[in-house]
Amino acid sequence: MTDAPIPAPVRALVLVCTLKPSPTDSSAQLVGEQVLAQLEDNGATGEIVRVVDHDVRFGVTTDEGDGDAWPDIRARMLASDILVVATPIWLGQPSSVCKMVLERLDAELGETDDQGRMLTQGKVAVVAVVGNEDGAHHVVAECLQALNDTGFSIPSLAATYWVGEAMQATDYRDVEPTPEKTASTTAVAATNAVHLARLLKAAPYPPQ
Amino acid sequence: MTDAPIPAPVRALVLVCTLKPSPTDSSAQLVGEQVLAQLEDNGATGEIVRVVDHDVRFGVTTDEGDGDAWPDIRARMLASDILVVATPIWLGQPSSVCKMVLERLDAELGETDDQGRMLTQGKVAVVAVVGNEDGAHHVVAECLQALNDTGFSIPSLAATYWVGEAMQATDYRDVEPTPEKTASTTAVAATNAVHLARLLKAAPYPPQ
Amino acid sequence: MTDAPIPAPVRALVLVCTLKPSPTDSSAQLVGEQVLAQLEDNGATGEIVRVVDHDVRFGVTTDEGDGDAWPDIRARMLASDILVVATPIWLGQPSSVCKMVLERLDAELGETDDQGRMLTQGKVAVVAVVGNEDGAHHVVAECLQALNDTGFSIPSLAATYWVGEAMQATDYRDVEPTPEKTASTTAVAATNAVHLARLLKAAPYPPQ
Amino acid sequence: MTDAPIPAPVRALVLVCTLKPSPTDSSAQLVGEQVLAQLEDNGATGEIVRVVDHDVRFGVTTDEGDGDAWPDIRARMLASDILVVATPIWLGQPSSVCKMVLERLDAELGETDDQGRMLTQGKVAVVAVVGNEDGAHHVVAECLQALNDTGFSIPSLAATYWVGEAMQATDYRDVEPTPEKTASTTAVAATNAVHLARLLKAAPYPPQ
Repeated sequence: MTDAPIPAPVRALVLVCTLKPSPTDSSAQLVGEQVLAQLEDNGATGEIVRVVDHDVRFGVTTDEGDGDAWPDIRARMLASDILVVATPIWLGQPSSVCKMVLERLDAELGETDDQGRMLTQGKVAVVAVVGNEDGAHHVVAECLQALNDTGFSIPSLAATYWVGEAMQATDYRDVEPTPEKTASTTAVAATNAVHLARLLKAAPYPPQ
Repeated sequence: MTDAPIPAPVRALVLVCTLKPSPTDSSAQLVGEQVLAQLEDNGATGEIVRVVDHDVRFGVTTDEGDGDAWPDIRARMLASDILVVATPIWLGQPSSVCKMVLERLDAELGETDDQGRMLTQGKVAVVAVVGNEDGAHHVVAECLQALNDTGFSIPSLAATYWVGEAMQATDYRDVEPTPEKTASTTAVAATNAVHLARLLKAAPYPPQ
Repeated sequence: MTDAPIPAPVRALVLVCTLKPSPTDSSAQLVGEQVLAQLEDNGATGEIVRVVDHDVRFGVTTDEGDGDAWPDIRARMLASDILVVATPIWLGQPSSVCKMVLERLDAELGETDDQGRMLTQGKVAVVAVVGNEDGAHHVVAECLQALNDTGFSIPSLAATYWVGEAMQATDYRDVEPTPEKTASTTAVAATNAVHLARLLKAAPYPPQ
Repeated sequence: MTDAPIPAPVRALVLVCTLKPSPTDSSAQLVGEQVLAQLEDNGATGEIVRVVDHDVRFGVTTDEGDGDAWPDIRARMLASDILVVATPIWLGQPSSVCKMVLERLDAELGETDDQGRMLTQGKVAVVAVVGNEDGAHHVVAECLQALNDTGFSIPSLAATYWVGEAMQATDYRDVEPTPEKTASTTAVAATNAVHLARLLKAAPYPPQ
C-alpha cells in the first residue's frame, strides 16, 4: 500500500481595492472574503489586505520610500502563490486603488532571479469584481492583461463578478443570498487557481 | 411680429450591428429604432441600416470593390448629420460587425475637404448598446474613441444602453415595458445629438 | 460699417495626472502645457493643476472632507469651459491618478441645475496622453467614455498623444524636437475644443 | 541508469486574423509564423489558419450552418493544446476578424465534458499583435479576457507584439531585421506556453 503524495501548501493574498478605508462596509471586501473562503476549501491558506487602509504611494518602483506601505504588501505577495485582486467598478472601469496596485506590480518587470525569471512567475492570479451595474468584463480585461504582463499565470475561468441590471444602485453586499451564479463562478475560479498554483510550484517555468 | 428662425433639417443614419440578418429579432435593432424615434421627436429624420443584411467587406478603404456594400452605406452616412451605432455586446465587447463598421470608417482619415477637414467632421455620433449582461460602458468606450478618431463629435451623454444582472440571459427585446432609465437616457442622448448637430451645421469647425 | 461679434472668453483647466509630484520632470506635464499653449493660440486662457501635488482623496463624492483638495480643483473645473486631462500610460492604461480624477468627476452625475442639466454639460473635454510605448488609444477610450458619462462634450479629434516604438524607454520630454505629428494633432484638438466650447456657451443644451 | 520521461506531444493552432485574404502580405501572418516557429523550437507541432481565407460566419454557435467554415477550424482548435491568436490593430483595437473568432469561441461555454469542464479547459492561449502604431496592450487585454472567459489558461508573459512610434505607418513585415525585443518576447511566450500546456495535459483541472 502506498500513500498518496501530500499536496504542497498553497498560500493566497487577497488585495481589496475599494476606495473606502475600514471599517466602512465594502462589497469588494466581501467578494474578496468569498474568494479566500473558496481557496481555503481547496486547501490553501491566506490573508486579506485592504489596500486603502495602508499608506501605499503612487509610483512604479518596489519602494517609493518615506513610509511607503507597498514594500510590506509586496513581501506578502512574494510569499504567496496566488494573488487575488478584488476591485469595485467605477465608471465601468477598475478603481484607482486597483490601478495603483497594478502600477506597483509593474516594478516586478525589473526583478528577476538568476534564471531570468521575474519573481512573480510561477504565481497565479484571480480577479474578483463587483459593482452596482455594468463593467465587470472590462475590469477583468484590464486586470488580466496587467497581471499577465507582470508575470502572473491565469488559470482557466479566473474571474468572478457580480453587477446589477443597467443603471441600478444595489450593492453586492446587500444582495441576499449571494447570487448563485456568482457563487459557483467563484468556486470554479478558486479550484482552478489552486490546481494551477500547485502545478507551477512543482514544475517552475524554464529559464527565460 | 417676427418669426422664430426655422431650424436646419437634421438627418440621422442608424447602423445596427447585430450578428444576425433579418428577419431574426434583434435587440440592437430595437434600441436603434428607439434612438431614431427620439431623434425624430427632436425634429430629425433618418433611416436604419442593418449592416449584416448587406455584403459589407472586411477592410479599411472606402470601397473594397467587387460588390462591396459599404460605398452605398457610406454615401448614406455622408448625407447624414448624426451617426448612431447600435450594437450588441459579446464577451463584454462590441460585436465583430460593429468593429467591421468602425474599420471602414477608418478610411475617412484620408478623405478631406479643401480646408483639410475630414468629411465626417461636423457630424455627431451616438452609441446604443444592449446585451444580456455586462459590457455596455466598455463598448461605449471603444465606439466613442473610434468615432472621435475618425472625425465625429460626441454630444454630452451620447450613449444609451441596457444590460441585465450578471450572468443573466434575458434579451432587451423581451423586457416589457422598456426599462424607464434606458428610455430616459435614450431621450437625453437624442436631444443632445440634435442640438449639437444643428450647432455644427450652422458653424463648422475651422480649417484644420 | 458693422463690427464682428467679439467671441466669448473661453477658459481651460488642464489636470496633469502624472504619478510624480513637482518638481520632478513630467512628460504628461509637458504635453499638458503644449495643449494649453495651443488653446491660448485659439484665444482661450487657462491654468494647469498637477493633481498629485495636492491632497486629493480617493472617493466618488464632490468633497471627501478632512482637507480633501478636490473641492478647490472642482471649483476651477466648474469655472472652466474646457477640461484637459493629461495622463501618462502605465501598463497600457491610464494612470491611477487619472482614474482618481475620473472617479471624482463621477459625483457630477448627482449635481444638476434647475433644468436637469449636470454642471459639466456645456463643457468640452480634451485628452492628452504620453508614454514610452503603446497604450494611447486605449487611454483615450477610457477617458472619453468617462468624461462623456459625466457630462462633457467631445469635439472632433479631441485627443493628442505620443508613444515610442514597442518596448522602448524614451520619454516624451526627451524627444527633441516635439514630434511634428503630435504637434499638429495637438493644434487640431485645441482649435476644435475652443470652437465647440464657444458654440455650447452661446447655445446651451436644452433641459434634460 | 534511468531514462528521462518523454514529454507529451504538444500541438498548436495559430489563427491569423488579418482583414486581407491570401496571397496579400500580412504582418499578422508573419508574427503568427514566428510564434509557431518558437513553439516548434520548444517541441510543439502546429499549423496556421488565415481565418479570412475561409467562409467563417458571424455568430455565437459552434456551427452556423450553410457552408460555415468554423466547424472545421473548431475541430483543429479542439485537437490542439495551444491556441495562438495573431491579430492586427485597427483604431487601437483588435480586428473585426479577431472579434468574429472570439465570438465563435463563446459557444464553448455550452460545450462541456462529463466532469462539467469546457472542452477548451486544459488548453493554453497566446496572443500576438502587430500594428503600425499603438494599441497592442489593449488588444492583448481584449483577447486574454475573452480567451480566459471561454476556458483557456494563460501562461506567464503570454503576449508578444510590435508597433511603431505614434502615428507612423511602417508595417511589421517591412521592419528588418525583426526587432530584437519582439523576438525575445515571442520566445518567452512560446517557452511558457509549451511548459504550461504540458503541465495541464498531464494534470487536467478537477471537475468543475
